[in-house]
Amino acid sequence: MKEQEFLQEIKEIELLNEALGLLEWDSQTGMPEASSSFRGEVVGYLSGMSFERSVGSKIQEALNYFDTHTEELSEVGLAVYTKVKENYELNQSIPPERMQAYTTALTNAHNAWLQARKAKDFGKMKNEIETIIGFLKEFIAYWKKDEETNYDVLLNQYEPELTVAKLDQIFAQVKEGIMEIRTVIAEKGTAPRTDFLSRKVSKEQQRKFVIGVVEQLGYDFSRGRLDDTVHPFMLSLNRNDGRITTRWDETKFTMATFGVIHEAGHGIYEQSIDSKYDYTPLSTGTSMGIHESQSLFNEIIIGSNKQFWQKQFPFFKECTEGTFDDIDFNTFYDSLKETKASLVRIEADSLTYPLHIIIRYEIEKMIFNDEVSMDDLPQIWNDKYEEYLGIRPENDLEGIVQDIHWSGGSFGYFPSYALGYMYAAQLCHAMEKEIDVNDVLASDDYSPIKNWLTTHIHQYGASRKPNQLILDATGESLNPQYLINYMKSIYYDVYKIKE
Amino acid sequence: MKEQEFLQEIKEIELLNEALGLLEWDSQTGMPEASSSFRGEVVGYLSGMSFERSVGSKIQEALNYFDTHTEELSEVGLAVYTKVKENYELNQSIPPERMQAYTTALTNAHNAWLQARKAKDFGKMKNEIETIIGFLKEFIAYWKKDEETNYDVLLNQYEPELTVAKLDQIFAQVKEGIMEIRTVIAEKGTAPRTDFLSRKVSKEQQRKFVIGVVEQLGYDFSRGRLDDTVHPFMLSLNRNDGRITTRWDETKFTMATFGVIHEAGHGIYEQSIDSKYDYTPLSTGTSMGIHESQSLFNEIIIGSNKQFWQKQFPFFKECTEGTFDDIDFNTFYDSLKETKASLVRIEADSLTYPLHIIIRYEIEKMIFNDEVSMDDLPQIWNDKYEEYLGIRPENDLEGIVQDIHWSGGSFGYFPSYALGYMYAAQLCHAMEKEIDVNDVLASDDYSPIKNWLTTHIHQYGASRKPNQLILDATGESLNPQYLINYMKSIYYDVYKIKE
Repeated sequence: MKEQEFLQEIKEIELLNEALGLLEWDSQTGMPEASSSFRGEVVGYLSGMSFERSVGSKIQEALNYFDTHTEELSEVGLAVYTKVKENYELNQSIPPERMQAYTTALTNAHNAWLQARKAKDFGKMKNEIETIIGFLKEFIAYWKKDEETNYDVLLNQYEPELTVAKLDQIFAQVKEGIMEIRTVIAEKGTAPRTDFLSRKVSKEQQRKFVIGVVEQLGYDFSRGRLDDTVHPFMLSLNRNDGRITTRWDETKFTMATFGVIHEAGHGIYEQSIDSKYDYTPLSTGTSMGIHESQSLFNEIIIGSNKQFWQKQFPFFKECTEGTFDDIDFNTFYDSLKETKASLVRIEADSLTYPLHIIIRYEIEKMIFNDEVSMDDLPQIWNDKYEEYLGIRPENDLEGIVQDIHWSGGSFGYFPSYALGYMYAAQLCHAMEKEIDVNDVLASDDYSPIKNWLTTHIHQYGASRKPNQLILDATGESLNPQYLINYMKSIYYDVYKIKE
Repeated sequence: MKEQEFLQEIKEIELLNEALGLLEWDSQTGMPEASSSFRGEVVGYLSGMSFERSVGSKIQEALNYFDTHTEELSEVGLAVYTKVKENYELNQSIPPERMQAYTTALTNAHNAWLQARKAKDFGKMKNEIETIIGFLKEFIAYWKKDEETNYDVLLNQYEPELTVAKLDQIFAQVKEGIMEIRTVIAEKGTAPRTDFLSRKVSKEQQRKFVIGVVEQLGYDFSRGRLDDTVHPFMLSLNRNDGRITTRWDETKFTMATFGVIHEAGHGIYEQSIDSKYDYTPLSTGTSMGIHESQSLFNEIIIGSNKQFWQKQFPFFKECTEGTFDDIDFNTFYDSLKETKASLVRIEADSLTYPLHIIIRYEIEKMIFNDEVSMDDLPQIWNDKYEEYLGIRPENDLEGIVQDIHWSGGSFGYFPSYALGYMYAAQLCHAMEKEIDVNDVLASDDYSPIKNWLTTHIHQYGASRKPNQLILDATGESLNPQYLINYMKSIYYDVYKIKE
């Protein structure tokens, strides 16, 4: 077995995955609905083939050989081998017929989720979610290593090397910090004016503005594109084809504006991975948490920055053709950073967002520690919202059935969003030792920021673990204090609080 | 070997082809250009796989078995078996390494074609075209059956059972008919006013109009979509996903209007194939010629019909918001049917178009009869344009390098376009025995026309040969006189010629 032969096999699997990527992108951006059963057949066939190849005899043979011949591998070859071995162990450990049964269960759960949304009733998906949880508990037994807890196993699939022990501590600190900021704001803050945010801005005006912004931020439209969709996402087929999507609301321009800025952060990451990883599983982001750190760096760090908005405000006014002529810059800026408890995660502001995640994290832990019955989940959910955010869902659509994740089997995924917040703030703190971020955002050239992120994060693709990347980039491991400090500085400024 | 097993193998090949279809559609409608080398790798890999499967051991085994067990096949199974056997014999006869070399030659020829266009010089692609021709001559030896001529073999790949002997006769009749009409028009005709056709009609206005029109004609947007592209085409992934494309010129609305009407004809065909052929090679049009008959029925038959335009004119005026308020209906209608010799095939009007095809046909025959050297081709081309159309290209871009077909190896394809014209007129003549086409086009409900075509053509997909379809639908085999009569009636009316 030569390295070349191994990499050729890997390449062919990646080519199948690239085709699957396009099929997925298309089905989310405009495939005629009537085509969906045909599409299901194509995707089922190709993804089956990709999975079989990834645990097939060639890969087995290569892993066996290189287990004792790592010295024959080039630097890239070694990194690929390591990643492929990880994926193989994850995939191969589950008996194929169980995996297939799980796939069917996911389809059922997705349909049940749609029903539950319609009925605003978790009861409609309870059994299907319980089935999914049953499968995952069964699979955890196969995946588990020495000292991991059950839920650690799930966390690790999205954020390698993360544990409940670490996360409990980190989330406790984040929760305390956010609660404190919210208390101070409630007691002493002056809420910004926001009425004008619902003024009509046409889709074309919004497009013009946000395309201009994300181009300046470094998203390369010659290696990507922006399309309409229902649930926005970024999907990268390869480093020259990192596609972003959005939805538009003409009476709420902030949705698409921050949405596209967010997705462009994901896109810039994928567009900036070193070409030496082409056609390998390293040619993508290393984890969900690091990926979110890049989208949230755009959305929360840059998107909360006063200099950035001061620079963009004239362009915004130009694009919106007089609609905001009566609004001065400070009033405009403050409106963007209003904070207000809300029931729906994807509509949450940047201060309260991590609390939504912490609620989900706590419930997921209870589920996988067998501390809760399905029937009690809606009540637990609602109680936690009342406790942390002071508001209570009136029905399950505003509550426990709002997210697609659980019906998709993605338990352990939610924490990535909060990690992204913390990583982004920590990266910004490290960046500021080398670059004056405010000055850059006040200038015509944002490239120093993108270049710093490419040097420290993007270029490595999935060849380095999140821990290592963050340690190398910032000189310390994950530290939530930077996020708390950042939130404090932004929100105390907007809410006119003098400490 | 059971029929079910055979059909499963066929289905999997079709699923690969459906993925390839989407990859192709995407690369023509908005894939970032920088992604093209990655796309090439994906397409190369999947199309290689599809080809290998189509000549692989399972197919061989199935064909061997059913050769002597046709009685075990259902009606659909038998039709699939027949089609697969044809394709197998076509594909399997070429040694794989020669086919691979040919694929490389096609890539080179395509690039040379792009260079030749830039330089407006056939010399830049001469060698590459000669290589392609060399390959085809080599392959013809493998494909050839008893009494076929070399060029018959190529014709048959696009229009089964068509021969040079038949086509020579038919084209002679068409040429004579068109030449006669052109002479009469030149001597006695009054040219229509056309200046207003270049008035600005925005893309949005054009879209609104033409989408409304093709929906009325029966193109189902819930099972298709309309996108922008450079070289318009229809591409069907399955009968619920028949996608059409167009390009727009705001100072020439007729381009997209007739273009979309044309592509919608292809789309309606694919959308109307019987579901019993799903996931088989029968679930598509039966030949290029029959496919063109459907697009041209829309474009030339319906699109030349005065009642149709009378009905659509108010809607056109509504969509164009006053731009044509000073133009009365007769002036408008006549302008659409101006005829004028032109050098570029895709810009030709419906009267002169067949002459462009006949020129290409005559040259292709010379090439495959070894009657011509590459160096002489541009001059032969130009001489023929002067002889048939009275105009002479000033450079090769206006002449022999205008079309993509030869660099794509598609010799024998051009006649399909002219066949489409003749089939369309013949189908219209047959339809009129059952339906008053003028009355239908003057009404609010065009469905009788679509339904007639579905009954006689669409539903069968590729399960019947063109000859058989035309014979069954019209009661006679291909007869070019209907086209000549139709052209005469349309153009003599527009040019105010009284016979």
